[in-house]
Amino acid sequence: MTFLQEVVDILLAYITESFDRETKVIDFHYPNELLQRNNWELQDEPETLDDILISCRATLKYAIKTAHPRYFNQLSTGLDMVGLAADWLTSTANTNMFTYEVAPVFVLLEYVTLKKMREIIGWEDGRGDGIFSPGGAISNMYAMLLARFKMFPEVKEKGMSSVPRLAAFTSEHSHFSIKKGAAALGIGTESVICIKADESGKMIPADLERKILEAKQKGFVPFFVSATAGTTVYGAFDPLIAISDICKKYQVWFHVDGAWGGSLIMSRMHKWKLDGVERSVLKLTWNPHKMMAVPLQCSALLVREEGLMQNCNQMHACYLFQQDKHYDLSYDTGDKALQCGRHVDIFKLWLMWRAKGTIGFEAQIDKCLELSEYLYNKIKDREGYEMVFNGKPQHTNVCFWYLPPGMRYMEDKEEKKKRLHKVAPVIKARMMEYGTTMVSYQPQGDKVNFFRMVISNPAATFEDIDFLIEEIERLGQDL
Amino acid sequence: MTFLQEVVDILLAYITESFDRETKVIDFHYPNELLQRNNWELQDEPETLDDILISCRATLKYAIKTAHPRYFNQLSTGLDMVGLAADWLTSTANTNMFTYEVAPVFVLLEYVTLKKMREIIGWEDGRGDGIFSPGGAISNMYAMLLARFKMFPEVKEKGMSSVPRLAAFTSEHSHFSIKKGAAALGIGTESVICIKADESGKMIPADLERKILEAKQKGFVPFFVSATAGTTVYGAFDPLIAISDICKKYQVWFHVDGAWGGSLIMSRMHKWKLDGVERSVLKLTWNPHKMMAVPLQCSALLVREEGLMQNCNQMHACYLFQQDKHYDLSYDTGDKALQCGRHVDIFKLWLMWRAKGTIGFEAQIDKCLELSEYLYNKIKDREGYEMVFNGKPQHTNVCFWYLPPGMRYMEDKEEKKKRLHKVAPVIKARMMEYGTTMVSYQPQGDKVNFFRMVISNPAATFEDIDFLIEEIERLGQDL
Repeated sequence: MTFLQEVVDILLAYITESFDRETKVIDFHYPNELLQRNNWELQDEPETLDDILISCRATLKYAIKTAHPRYFNQLSTGLDMVGLAADWLTSTANTNMFTYEVAPVFVLLEYVTLKKMREIIGWEDGRGDGIFSPGGAISNMYAMLLARFKMFPEVKEKGMSSVPRLAAFTSEHSHFSIKKGAAALGIGTESVICIKADESGKMIPADLERKILEAKQKGFVPFFVSATAGTTVYGAFDPLIAISDICKKYQVWFHVDGAWGGSLIMSRMHKWKLDGVERSVLKLTWNPHKMMAVPLQCSALLVREEGLMQNCNQMHACYLFQQDKHYDLSYDTGDKALQCGRHVDIFKLWLMWRAKGTIGFEAQIDKCLELSEYLYNKIKDREGYEMVFNGKPQHTNVCFWYLPPGMRYMEDKEEKKKRLHKVAPVIKARMMEYGTTMVSYQPQGDKVNFFRMVISNPAATFEDIDFLIEEIERLGQDL
Repeated sequence: MTFLQEVVDILLAYITESFDRETKVIDFHYPNELLQRNNWELQDEPETLDDILISCRATLKYAIKTAHPRYFNQLSTGLDMVGLAADWLTSTANTNMFTYEVAPVFVLLEYVTLKKMREIIGWEDGRGDGIFSPGGAISNMYAMLLARFKMFPEVKEKGMSSVPRLAAFTSEHSHFSIKKGAAALGIGTESVICIKADESGKMIPADLERKILEAKQKGFVPFFVSATAGTTVYGAFDPLIAISDICKKYQVWFHVDGAWGGSLIMSRMHKWKLDGVERSVLKLTWNPHKMMAVPLQCSALLVREEGLMQNCNQMHACYLFQQDKHYDLSYDTGDKALQCGRHVDIFKLWLMWRAKGTIGFEAQIDKCLELSEYLYNKIKDREGYEMVFNGKPQHTNVCFWYLPPGMRYMEDKEEKKKRLHKVAPVIKARMMEYGTTMVSYQPQGDKVNFFRMVISNPAATFEDIDFLIEEIERLGQDL
C-alpha cells in the first residue's frame, strides 16, 4: 500500500508536468541509445521496491507526454482526470467482460451506454446490439464479418468455399483496417474495391454505383460498403445519405466507420455531417478514445439487428457460458465476441459521461473544431503555407504544406515538389529532438509530404495553435 | 489532483478489503435488481465530482473481488501490487503501441520481454517475433492466420477462393477460440477437425494421424494443428513431442495454445509438461494474465519466423508508418498487427518480472500447483467426492463431483446422474448469494456438471482450500 501510494505520487507529479507547457512533450532518444541509457533487461533475481520505483520514473522520463497541450500527433490525445480515475478503478477491479457473473456492474454499464449511443444515432428506442472491442480496426473487422454472415450464414460452418466471390467497397481515403480485415477474413484485399474520393476526400457516390455494377458484371457479389465519417488524413465525411441509397438499391450492407468522426454526432452544431448514419443498416464503429478523449482503448461497434452478433460468433462453450446459471443469461455477452477474455473498456467512458454530461462532450468537441477553424483561418492566406485541399475543414484535420522562404519562388515545379517532400519529415524530426510539440505528416496519392494537424486534446488553446505555427517556421526557415 | 487522490483512497480501501477473508467475494444481485439499486443512467447534464466519487464506490460495492483469496472462478485471479501500479502508470501514459514514435519505452520493453520469452521457450538466441494481443482467442486467431498465409501467401490478396479446402486439427478439449477463429477467417468450423482426447483430456496422437490422413483422402489440405498446453477444463497437456513429429511428417504447421499452461515453462519442476514446445514451428500463445497473475489483459503470441507477421498483415499505410522518419523503423510494430491502435499491455508484465525475477514467477506457479495437489489429495478418497478423471492433476485444475449425503447410495444410475447434474449449479448459486467463495462448474461430453477448481491466485493458502471444501459441504448437504 505504501508502495502503491509512492507510485501514485510519481504519477501525480508526472501529470502536473505533462500539462505544463514549459515541459518537453518528449525527451527523444534513438532506439539503440534508449536501450543503452537504462538497464531494461529481465533477470532471474528480484529487484527491491525502490528499484521498481526507479524503473517507473525512468519509464515516464522517456515516455511521450500525450496529455501535453502541444501534443497533436495522433487522433487520440489528452488526459481526462475522470477518465484516468476510472481506468485506475478498472485495473483495480481486474476483471473480464465475458459474463455477468464476473463483471456484473461493468456488463450493465456497457448495456446502458451502448443503448444510449444507439439512441443518439437515432435507432428506434435505442434498439440493437453492440460491443466494445479492442480498437477501431477490430470493430471494422467485426462489421465485415457480420455483413458476410448476414448475407451467407452458411459461411460460419462451411467457410468461404460455400460462398460466391464477394466484393467490398470503400473510399480510397478510408482506413487501412478495411483491407486488413478483408485479408484476415479470407476475403482477400483484391476484393476490396476502392472508390474514388473528390478533392476534399469524400467518396464519390457515382463512382460507387459504377464499381458495384462493374463488380456484379464480373461475377462478384457486392456485400459490404464501408463509408467513412471522418477520414484519417483529411477528416472528410463521406455523403452517407447518397451512399445508403445506393446500398439499398443494390442490397449491399452499409457500414459507417466513424472511428474518428462518429463523436461529432454529440454536437448539435456539427452532427449534420453524419446525416444518414441512422441508415447504416448494420453497424457503426465509433471510438470514444479519439474525439471524446477517453483513455485508450475505447472503441464501440454498434449493431442495428439484435441477435446477429450472437448468431454469427457464438460457439456455445459450456464451460464458460453455462446455461443453467441462476440469473438472466442475456447479460452474458462473451459468446457474441471474437475474444474470450475481454478487457473492461466501458467504465472510463461511462464515468466521464456522468461527469461531463452529454453537453460536456459536446462542448469539448465544439471547442476542438473551433480551434481547427482558427488554425485554418490563420494559415490559409499566410505566406509560406499552402492548403492541401480547399475549403473549411470538416473535422479537426487541417492539412497543409509549409514552404520555407528559400522554396517559395522556385520555378522548377518538379524540383520544388521533390524538396517540399523532405520539409515536413525534417521539421518533425527537429520537433521531436527539441521536444517542443508533435504533429503528424504523410504523403497522400500524388501529393508530397504535408502536415496533418488534428486536435482532440481538450487542453489545447488558441495560444498552442499560435505556438505550433511559430515552431514550424522556426524549425523550417533554413530548409 | 485532489480528486484523483480521493479516488486512490477509495481504491486502496477496496484493495485492503479484497484481501480480507471476512469480506464477501461478491455482494450478489440479479441484473434487474442491480439496475434498479442505483441510478446508472447517462444524462445531458454533468454531475459533481462528489457524485462521481459516489459512483466509484457503488461500482466497487457490486464488483467481484477478484483479488479475494477465495475467488477461484476463472483462470485469471488475484491482484499483484506491482502489476497494478504498472497498470496505473500505463493508463497515465495513455499511449498506443503502433509506433516507436508514440511509445518509445513500451515498444522497447515489448521487444526485450518477447525476446526473453522466446529464450525461455528454447528458440535459438531468442530469435523470432511476437506481439501482445487482446487475449488468447485473438492470439490463437493470429496463429491460424499466419499458418494459412505461410502455406498460401496468395490468400492475402485473393482470399480463400484461391486456396484448396483447408483442414485444421485440435483436440475435442481445446478452447473454443480455435473454431471461432476458423469461422472468422472464412475457413469454416466444419474444417476444424476434433481429435479425440484420452480419459485425462490429452490429445491422442494416433487419432490425429488418422484424421490427417482421412482429411487428405477427402481432398482437404491439412495446414494447422493446435495442440493445447493446459486445457481449460481438465488442465491437460497434449503430448507435444508426438504431435510435432506427426506435424513434421505431414508438413502441417504446429501451434501450441499455451494460454493457460504456457507459464509452467517458468517452473523447473513442471516445465517437462511442455516438452516439445520448442518444436512449435510457428507459434505459441502464452497468457501471463492467467497463471502469472498479471492484470488483465496480457496475452503474448510468439512466432518463430522473423518477418512472417509483417508480411502477413502489413498494408503499408503511409499516414501511420511513414518510411522517411529519422529513427530505426524496425521498431514500428503496428503494421504487423491486426489492430491499428493497440493498448499497452507490456508494462505490467515487465515491471512484475523485474520485481519478482524469473524465480519469483517460478515460486508463485509452484505454489499454486502445490495447493492444487493438496486439494486433490484431500478429496480423492474423501466421502462424497468423485474425481472426474484419475491421476494427479497436471495443472492446477481439479475436476470433481460432490455428492450430497442423500445421493451417495442411490441405485438408479440414470436418476443419480440427473440429480447430480443439478448439484453444482445450486451450490454455485448459493456461494454467490452468500458471497463466500466462487468456483466454476460445467458439464463435459457425457459427464454431468462437475466443479472445476483452478488456482492462479497467489493469495490463496491451504486454509482457503480447506474452506472451499467445507463450504461446498455446508451449501450442498441438503441437496
